[in-house]
Amino acid sequence: MSEVKAYAAHAEKENLKPLDIERRNVKATDVEIDILYCGVCHSDIHTVNDDWGGAKYPVVPGHEIVGRVLNVGDKVKNFKEGDLVGVGCMVDSCQTCDSCKEGLEQYCENGAIMTYDGKDEHLGGHTFGGYSEKIVVDKEFVLSIPENIDIKATAPLLCAGITTWSPLQHWNVKKGDKVGVIGLGGLGHMGVKFASAMGAHVVMITTSPSKSDDAKSLGADSVLISKDEKQMEEHANSFDFLLNTVPVGHDTNPYIALLKRDATMVMVGAIEPLDPIHGGGLIIGRKSVAGSVIGGIKETQEMLDFCGEHNITCDVEMIDIQNINDAYERVVNSDVKYRFVIDMKSLKN
Amino acid sequence: MSEVKAYAAHAEKENLKPLDIERRNVKATDVEIDILYCGVCHSDIHTVNDDWGGAKYPVVPGHEIVGRVLNVGDKVKNFKEGDLVGVGCMVDSCQTCDSCKEGLEQYCENGAIMTYDGKDEHLGGHTFGGYSEKIVVDKEFVLSIPENIDIKATAPLLCAGITTWSPLQHWNVKKGDKVGVIGLGGLGHMGVKFASAMGAHVVMITTSPSKSDDAKSLGADSVLISKDEKQMEEHANSFDFLLNTVPVGHDTNPYIALLKRDATMVMVGAIEPLDPIHGGGLIIGRKSVAGSVIGGIKETQEMLDFCGEHNITCDVEMIDIQNINDAYERVVNSDVKYRFVIDMKSLKN
Repeated sequence: MSEVKAYAAHAEKENLKPLDIERRNVKATDVEIDILYCGVCHSDIHTVNDDWGGAKYPVVPGHEIVGRVLNVGDKVKNFKEGDLVGVGCMVDSCQTCDSCKEGLEQYCENGAIMTYDGKDEHLGGHTFGGYSEKIVVDKEFVLSIPENIDIKATAPLLCAGITTWSPLQHWNVKKGDKVGVIGLGGLGHMGVKFASAMGAHVVMITTSPSKSDDAKSLGADSVLISKDEKQMEEHANSFDFLLNTVPVGHDTNPYIALLKRDATMVMVGAIEPLDPIHGGGLIIGRKSVAGSVIGGIKETQEMLDFCGEHNITCDVEMIDIQNINDAYERVVNSDVKYRFVIDMKSLKN
Repeated sequence: MSEVKAYAAHAEKENLKPLDIERRNVKATDVEIDILYCGVCHSDIHTVNDDWGGAKYPVVPGHEIVGRVLNVGDKVKNFKEGDLVGVGCMVDSCQTCDSCKEGLEQYCENGAIMTYDGKDEHLGGHTFGGYSEKIVVDKEFVLSIPENIDIKATAPLLCAGITTWSPLQHWNVKKGDKVGVIGLGGLGHMGVKFASAMGAHVVMITTSPSKSDDAKSLGADSVLISKDEKQMEEHANSFDFLLNTVPVGHDTNPYIALLKRDATMVMVGAIEPLDPIHGGGLIIGRKSVAGSVIGGIKETQEMLDFCGEHNITCDVEMIDIQNINDAYERVVNSDVKYRFVIDMKSLKN
C-alpha cells in the first residue's frame, strides 16, 4: 500500500478538500500511473452531491485521467515506464460475460467497476478516481494516448469523447448523413467534432442563438434554434441521426419530430425521467429513442487513435485543483467552454 | 357513380346507422369488391367518437375488408372477377416518394390515403370504409387472400395482423429469440401467433393472470404477470424483443427493464403520451423504444401468404351489422376474443 494525495468530498455535499488515500501495490497485471491531468465531468459533481443517491464518502472524483506510466507488473507487456496513458470511467469488469467478450465492458452483465465510488475488490471499500497524484489500474483498462496531440486536452476524451463517439459509430453515422447534436456542452462539443470528422452534415440544435458562432467554429455546418417553431418545422423528418446530450430530463417530442423514417435519437446525457413521449411520434415514421453509455475499451482506443490521426482534442480550460469548487459552480451554471481540466501538478503545491 | 348501402356515424358521437353512399365508377386501374366480411378495429371506435380529433362525418368505418372481386378496370391484370381479395388501412399513396418506392406506403412522405376518413381524390370529400356492400380500390392496394383458410377469420389480418407482423419482421425476430408480447387483445393475440410461428420463445406479458390459459393456447410458451415484481425481476435484461400492444399511454419503464442489451421494445398500440421514460433505463444497456404502424402492401401480401402456408387466422366473433353498437361497447370493455368481424350479408337484411 502507498499513500497518495487526493482531493475528495469527505461527507455529503461538503466541498472538495485535500485527503491522503491508499492506493494498492502494483500487482502482476497492474499499471501504476503518475496522473498529469484529470477532466471535470458533470457526473463528478452529481456524485459529490449524492444527487443520484448511493454516493460513498470520501468521494475522490475524476474519470478523465491522463498520465505517464510509473511502473508496471510482470505480466504487463503493452505498457512501459514513461508511456502516455489514459484511464476512463471503468477500472475493471468481469471479462467473461457476453458484453465483456464483445468489448463492451460498459455493459458488463456482472457490473463494471467504476473508476471512483465503485466496489474496490483489491483493498475493500470503494474506488478512488483521478483527482489524485497516482492511480493503479489493471492493464486491460489502460488506454494508449497519442503523443502528437495536446496532452492536457485529451483527458476529456476518456468520458465526454467516448460517450459521443460510441453511439455515432454504433448507429453507423457516415459521410453525408444529416446529424443533429442537441445541446452544446462538454458532450455536445465533442459530438460536433466527431460527426464532422466522420463527414456528416452536422446541425447544432440548441435553445441559445448565442451559441451559433461557437458551434460553427467547432465544425457544425448549420445551427437550428429549437425554440423557433418555424425552423423546427422546416427540418421536420429530415435527420438521419440525433445525438441528444441534454443532461437533464426534458421534452424530447420536438426532436423526435425531426427524425426521418427509421431514424434514431440517442440519449447520452439525461438519466432522469424524460417528459412524456407521444407514442404516435414514434409510430408514425417507425422512429426510435435509444440510450448509450460511454464505450468499451476497444472502441475507446479506436477513438483515441482516430483523434491522433485527425488532430482532435477537447476544448478545455485549465485549472489548479485549489480552484475545483469554483469550477464546479461554473459547470453547474454551464459557464465553461467546454471542459475543465485539472493540472495535477497543482496537487503538489 | 353507384349508390351502395353502408353503416355510418352521421354526426359526432352518434351511433352507427344505415346510410346510402356513393362509390366511384370503376376506372382502368380499379378493382370493385363485393364485401363479405369486415373486422372491427378499436380505431374505428376512436374515429366514430372523434377521440383523436379531425373525424369527418359521416364516418363509414372499417379497414379490415375481405370480399370477392366484382369487376376490374382494363389495366388490371392480377385480379379477376371472383378472386378472394382484401383491403387494409390504406387505399392510395403517392407511389413516388422513397417510402412508397421501398414498399412502405404506410410511411408515404406525401401522406397515404386511409381507407376511411381519408381525402377522396376521386369524388372529393372523404373516403368510406368497409362497413359497406362494396368498395372500389386501386389495384395497388388490393391484396390476394389465400382460399385455403377460414375466410371470415382473415379479415383482421389486414390491420391487427400486419400491425404485429411488420415489426416482428423488421426487427428480425428469429427462431429461438425470447419475445415478449405485452397485452392480449386483438393485436396481442396475433403477435403471439406470429412470433410463435416464427420459432421464437414467446412470453405473454399481461396484468391479468386470468389470461394465462388463453395465451398458452394461442402459442405462448409462458406467461409473465407484469404486476408481480418478483417475476419481473427474474426476467430482467432477458428479452430479445418486446412487442407492446397496450392501446393507451402507460408506464413502459418496467418493460424496458426486461430488455437485453441492444434490444428494442416496439410500440404498436399507444399513440398517446407514455408515462415519463427514465433516460437511465435506455442508457444502461443501450436499449431502444421504437414505434411501428401497420405495414406496406408488399409485406402485407407476404404475411397473407405466410398465413395461408401456416394456417394462421385471427380468433374472431362474428356479428351482424345490426349489432355493431353493442360490439363497440364490448370492444371498449375488452370483452372480445379477439376481434369482432361483421358478416356483411347482414347489411342486405
